[in-house]
Amino acid sequence: MYTLTEAQKLIEKHLANIKFPEDPTELYEPVHYILSIGGKRIRPALVLLACDMFDGSVESALHPATAIEIFHNFTLLHDDIMDKSELRRGKQTVHVKWDDNTAILSGDVMSILASQFMNEAPGAVLRGVHNVFTRTAIEVCEGQQLDMNFENMLTVTEQQYLRMIELKTSVLIAASLKIGAMLGGASEKDAADLYDFGRDLGIAFQLQDDLLDAYGDPELFGKKPGMDIVDNKKTMLMITALRDANPEQKKALTGWLTARDADPEEKVQAVMQLFDALHVKEKVNREINNYYQQALESLNHLNTPMERKTELFAFAEYLMERQN
Amino acid sequence: MYTLTEAQKLIEKHLANIKFPEDPTELYEPVHYILSIGGKRIRPALVLLACDMFDGSVESALHPATAIEIFHNFTLLHDDIMDKSELRRGKQTVHVKWDDNTAILSGDVMSILASQFMNEAPGAVLRGVHNVFTRTAIEVCEGQQLDMNFENMLTVTEQQYLRMIELKTSVLIAASLKIGAMLGGASEKDAADLYDFGRDLGIAFQLQDDLLDAYGDPELFGKKPGMDIVDNKKTMLMITALRDANPEQKKALTGWLTARDADPEEKVQAVMQLFDALHVKEKVNREINNYYQQALESLNHLNTPMERKTELFAFAEYLMERQN
Repeated sequence: MYTLTEAQKLIEKHLANIKFPEDPTELYEPVHYILSIGGKRIRPALVLLACDMFDGSVESALHPATAIEIFHNFTLLHDDIMDKSELRRGKQTVHVKWDDNTAILSGDVMSILASQFMNEAPGAVLRGVHNVFTRTAIEVCEGQQLDMNFENMLTVTEQQYLRMIELKTSVLIAASLKIGAMLGGASEKDAADLYDFGRDLGIAFQLQDDLLDAYGDPELFGKKPGMDIVDNKKTMLMITALRDANPEQKKALTGWLTARDADPEEKVQAVMQLFDALHVKEKVNREINNYYQQALESLNHLNTPMERKTELFAFAEYLMERQN
Repeated sequence: MYTLTEAQKLIEKHLANIKFPEDPTELYEPVHYILSIGGKRIRPALVLLACDMFDGSVESALHPATAIEIFHNFTLLHDDIMDKSELRRGKQTVHVKWDDNTAILSGDVMSILASQFMNEAPGAVLRGVHNVFTRTAIEVCEGQQLDMNFENMLTVTEQQYLRMIELKTSVLIAASLKIGAMLGGASEKDAADLYDFGRDLGIAFQLQDDLLDAYGDPELFGKKPGMDIVDNKKTMLMITALRDANPEQKKALTGWLTARDADPEEKVQAVMQLFDALHVKEKVNREINNYYQQALESLNHLNTPMERKTELFAFAEYLMERQN
């Protein structure tokens, strides 16, 4: 059985050995760039771990795993254009380092390259993994659309928010595990259980990301705390606060959300005080724990010996204990 | 045997019956829009004709054919952002009617939808058609990149230009025929011959497009003549003229290519006079005919009864005689 770290290393090595086309360089340089500036390779590693869990050939899962990683990086590339983000993993984003057109077209080719790599899956599961992959990829686009819609909405419900992060973040983690399981020859039920494990863990992961933004150790988290507050992001913290606020608190929160030219530090401090008064941290932590427990239940439910599940239990714990 | 018109109607009906997702509407409205504002459905119709030629089930080719049409429209959608085009088929482009982000994300989802439709191909050829499709899709991106590169290049050689139009335009026509042939159960050799037929015909088609811009009947062509000249496009006409010009003519051509704020009508008239003096029309017509004859040769070469080729011969003639 491979460990997560071993699986990550395998992916890193496989990615480094891939000969992408070189020409036209304007098209492929950004592809090399985005794939080389880091990333934890979590999703493709999960493909390998899930495949290995059912005694599948990890070797034959490498290309489909790579497909997932290329697709994930394609979404980052295009999201960064849409969100006008200037940094990704501490480096210049592609549309800043080159330009928007380059980022659009290089992203396009990555999306197709991903499909090409997925097409290397063994014949018995080829149509199946393509179907899971395309359905998931479509859902990721839907999630990004919902996320953009939220920017123009005055209120976002908890349910709407959970659906958005499920689509934007969770389903790809879930699909990585499911595709890995299919490649490993798992039963439909086991593949579905692994999908559910990944989906719930992914939601817990994203909610924890919201929490870390406000409550994380800035040294460990690597970002200034409260950036979501400064950016008026409708995260789970803000949604919970707005839901539970009394009229006075609600007025104060809405005031900060609509204030122009507010002093960032003052704003973060004031909103955090409201969060604290409303026990937002505890409430979101409770929600995270619900999803985490649900994820563990799906993993327990899986019809495979406990010793084969160890690495995924460890992975779940690692995700939940992370500080960054 | 289906005729081209019948095949086009089949595609139109199939497209109209597809239930794309509705939600989020911001994501899917542009998909409906671009697929509903027209287009001749040439590429998917070619999938059906090629499949039919080998007695394949046209019914089972409908989804893969639709994949090609969705992919083609995805490339138009993203090309229009990159080229800042305001009109497509006489209607507002998606990035103008909505905005750039909408056009990026709706295009992304179309590219994935195309792959999803291709995944409906029968099992025996599934991997094969996916491979032809993804390789071709990658080439189309490369062609668009080369086209954008040409805008910043002082000189483009005939060879570079032919390679660009082969990638940007021809390979998708060629792949449509090849995928159709594969779906119909054609031999590898026959599928390859059909590919060559489509590639050479596609190049002839694009060169004729260059010619029509300058020499087409404006009433029939539906565009103002000489727009490529106004836009300083390095078309086959300009490349041929620059190649054959004497120093004085070359100086004049380069002058118009670099002139700022030139009067468009005056510029078109002057450049056309230089084209005429250099017999550009005849030379490009000769080149078109070379590719056309080469295409017909591939079709003749095909190991199938002549009566099964009638519709593709008619199609080639129709393309070459078009005035728009």
